[in-house]
Amino acid sequence: MSLLVTGSIAIDTVKTPYGISENCLGGSAAYFAMAASFFCPVRLVGAVGSDCPFDLAKIFAGRDVDLAGLEIRQHSKTFRWTGSYLENMDDRRTDRLELNVLAEAPPKVPAAFRNSEYVFLANTAPNLQHELLEQIENPVFVAADTMDCWIAEQLEDLKALLKRVDCLIINEDEARMLAGEQNLIKAAENILRLGPSSIVIKKGESGSITCNANAEMLILPGYPAQNVKDPTGAGDSFAGALLGYMAQTGKTDFETLKTAVAYGTIVASFTIADFSINGLAKTTRRDIDNRLAELRKLVKF
Amino acid sequence: MSLLVTGSIAIDTVKTPYGISENCLGGSAAYFAMAASFFCPVRLVGAVGSDCPFDLAKIFAGRDVDLAGLEIRQHSKTFRWTGSYLENMDDRRTDRLELNVLAEAPPKVPAAFRNSEYVFLANTAPNLQHELLEQIENPVFVAADTMDCWIAEQLEDLKALLKRVDCLIINEDEARMLAGEQNLIKAAENILRLGPSSIVIKKGESGSITCNANAEMLILPGYPAQNVKDPTGAGDSFAGALLGYMAQTGKTDFETLKTAVAYGTIVASFTIADFSINGLAKTTRRDIDNRLAELRKLVKF
Repeated sequence: MSLLVTGSIAIDTVKTPYGISENCLGGSAAYFAMAASFFCPVRLVGAVGSDCPFDLAKIFAGRDVDLAGLEIRQHSKTFRWTGSYLENMDDRRTDRLELNVLAEAPPKVPAAFRNSEYVFLANTAPNLQHELLEQIENPVFVAADTMDCWIAEQLEDLKALLKRVDCLIINEDEARMLAGEQNLIKAAENILRLGPSSIVIKKGESGSITCNANAEMLILPGYPAQNVKDPTGAGDSFAGALLGYMAQTGKTDFETLKTAVAYGTIVASFTIADFSINGLAKTTRRDIDNRLAELRKLVKF
Repeated sequence: MSLLVTGSIAIDTVKTPYGISENCLGGSAAYFAMAASFFCPVRLVGAVGSDCPFDLAKIFAGRDVDLAGLEIRQHSKTFRWTGSYLENMDDRRTDRLELNVLAEAPPKVPAAFRNSEYVFLANTAPNLQHELLEQIENPVFVAADTMDCWIAEQLEDLKALLKRVDCLIINEDEARMLAGEQNLIKAAENILRLGPSSIVIKKGESGSITCNANAEMLILPGYPAQNVKDPTGAGDSFAGALLGYMAQTGKTDFETLKTAVAYGTIVASFTIADFSINGLAKTTRRDIDNRLAELRKLVKF
């Protein structure tokens, strides 16, 4: 089935205790598309400026990623993020942020993409997510991400969006904030009442909690990665593998979502093993399936 | 098989966002014995002062807990701990600590307990743990806990003890500190090189990582408890159920340890549902087995 992602393409500079990577490819749509492409064709909608140094066609060569929705704006500059990770690799600091093209009007969804069935709205202002979703004719499964600033500043827009979202994929701190509840299980229940039929709460290296409105639940630990160089993109590649697997199967039931979350966990563990998309670039579907089988064994008692 | 615990009996005063419990029964040996008694008979070794307000024989009535190793010292005072939990229920603060009897010579292991096969050395100074262990003739499986102050101040004693311990059960921050390594999987490997054949790293509500020297591993999330009133005793009742199940089966292999860790996870989830030992007091073995089956389902994908 068809899968569309709307999100950012970024010029990242990332510093971790293991090194520094300057002006490398980043952004939610880049990580998502790389991850999802292990499972199904991907349609990418995003915008960059004329300064964008990346040859995305080349980077995605050999993967079924359709770049017809990528706008290259001649008079704009590409989104830039500079950040550092602390020793524990979980806490990160934004050192510099240049929104640039992300502060302009959002990209248009090409006519050929409007029949997309699976849709991921990567993190951006909820009214923009809404505007992008409006352009999809009849989506089967819509997932979205959000972050603390939108919960704080555009809560009504976010609530309006949540009524049209099937699955919300967010971090634990954001879940607590959105729900006004410390306990994550209760927080998940509160958020499900806002509209989504399922929610995936990401807990970094501690894994994830997935629930739906029928009180079905999956609790997964993170994959025990020993090689962690750069956590950037873990969340978006988690979402990419999750939606990619859902679209590959063509299903939306909870059993499928459970396997999809496990794939998300595994693909994220390959992302963080190197800077930028380099971890994913050298991974194969066979590597992913082997590690999925390993995770299944690791949680068995 | 026989199971012995050496640890503290405490007069606790605990404040959480859900209330306050003053002068209630606490201490590692109390929680451990309650938890282990669901699985097998327990021999308790500990000391209290003449001010101890608890009728332990009555509290443990109907459970097979042998109190022959409990010393009541006429001229001593019982260990007291006063602490508070913050909103997230994971971070806690010690408001007041009176070691009292714990600062004296450790209790003696009664002659009738010296043939114990399974032994848990609850957290105390490693030289005291060593002295207690010396009194056991031929233990089959020895597990121990420790904490940050001993890692910082008595590392050599702790390392000497670890050579005689089969399984170390510690918190994630202590594991990182002891191993000098942030990554928990690498930290576990470093610690296994110090002597124990297995290690269980507790991650609070995020579950646990269990490894052995043959690179076998279990990664379990925490049970998704919605009702958390007081986390005190979670770690010691986790250890109690773990050792209790091991002793009940009479085995020490990794497959048994995996199920034992799952039982530890479940029993801890009952402990934290109420103050002091009240959560455990109203739990049955059937409740525990039902929730174990539930956890097995929650991690399946």
